[in-house]
Amino acid sequence: MSTRANAHSGIDGGPSHSARYFRFAGVDHGEWKVLDQRVIVGEALADVAGLTLLPPTAPTPTSAHWLLSGVTSNERYVERDEKVALMSRQESLGRPAAARAALIPIRKNAAWWALTQDERRRIFEADSRHIAIGLQALPAIARRLHHCRDLPTSEPFDFLTWFEYAPQDEPVFDTLLRDLRATREWTYVDWEVELRLVRES
Amino acid sequence: MSTRANAHSGIDGGPSHSARYFRFAGVDHGEWKVLDQRVIVGEALADVAGLTLLPPTAPTPTSAHWLLSGVTSNERYVERDEKVALMSRQESLGRPAAARAALIPIRKNAAWWALTQDERRRIFEADSRHIAIGLQALPAIARRLHHCRDLPTSEPFDFLTWFEYAPQDEPVFDTLLRDLRATREWTYVDWEVELRLVRES
Repeated sequence: MSTRANAHSGIDGGPSHSARYFRFAGVDHGEWKVLDQRVIVGEALADVAGLTLLPPTAPTPTSAHWLLSGVTSNERYVERDEKVALMSRQESLGRPAAARAALIPIRKNAAWWALTQDERRRIFEADSRHIAIGLQALPAIARRLHHCRDLPTSEPFDFLTWFEYAPQDEPVFDTLLRDLRATREWTYVDWEVELRLVRES
Repeated sequence: MSTRANAHSGIDGGPSHSARYFRFAGVDHGEWKVLDQRVIVGEALADVAGLTLLPPTAPTPTSAHWLLSGVTSNERYVERDEKVALMSRQESLGRPAAARAALIPIRKNAAWWALTQDERRRIFEADSRHIAIGLQALPAIARRLHHCRDLPTSEPFDFLTWFEYAPQDEPVFDTLLRDLRATREWTYVDWEVELRLVRES
């Protein structure tokens, strides 16, 4: 008898949430105020005035206009030397000075997902220098990547990236986005919107 | 306004299931009869007489003793030449002659998940020849891999692999398992059970 398997399987009192599961709720009034929605490619999200980042244990707010879900996971492309460089420079979320944030949901097209691991890695770093570009924005920009593609529910996006930075570092963030969007990797992005946010005081 | 984002977000009438989401239910009587449970490492699942593979649209049976969930996804390690070789030889699930099946849930330890992509790939194929070993079992053994690690719920296992084969090919399956379990990759497996099944006539 496996009590452990039962405890997690949704049979005994329902499943508990993974500690890596996060939801972003578009609301009228949240912890973050929406300054601007920019549609990079594809259609806009329904306009909302606020956004709340829900931790795994939080109940889903019934008043949300939309809800985007994702899980943090192991890196798919980063190699050891790159991980060492990233970890030595990256900052955590929640810094008091980081009063600005952005949520960028993206979807990649079917051609990307039909590529094999070696082909995706080649485009990601050898061609597009995704990690190298990201390193240039550290430590100013703190970042957390959430995966949505392999959730049990049909999710509109493949990835949700959350960024936090101090107001004076917004030019660093603008440069990061400009450089990433000019890469070969980004030719596979077929839906991308950007919500710029300020922390509610 | 994004009707598409709303439609998928769980706000308007609840989310629909991904077409890649599958559940395995341990039941008293199912489409497959359990011949044997073998515990390779870790603890046993609760003993059940039957197993049913639920497609994404199926409701969850209320009478299940346990439920294991996973999603199929893009390959994490396979390179293009390997994919071509696999696709040229692999068979589909549901062959009439494939009256035997096996469900093998496994979990890998924290050390595995702390490795970077290049380190995991090196262990997976250069050291362990996972793909080469798997190719030797084709086309006799049909296989589908489900990922559980990045589900929103806390799942007991990281992977659920489903195998189907004709009764006379059971020795091929035994050899496949023996060879995989002797690899360096398998030193990272800290929970593995094996359910051998026969199709209910």
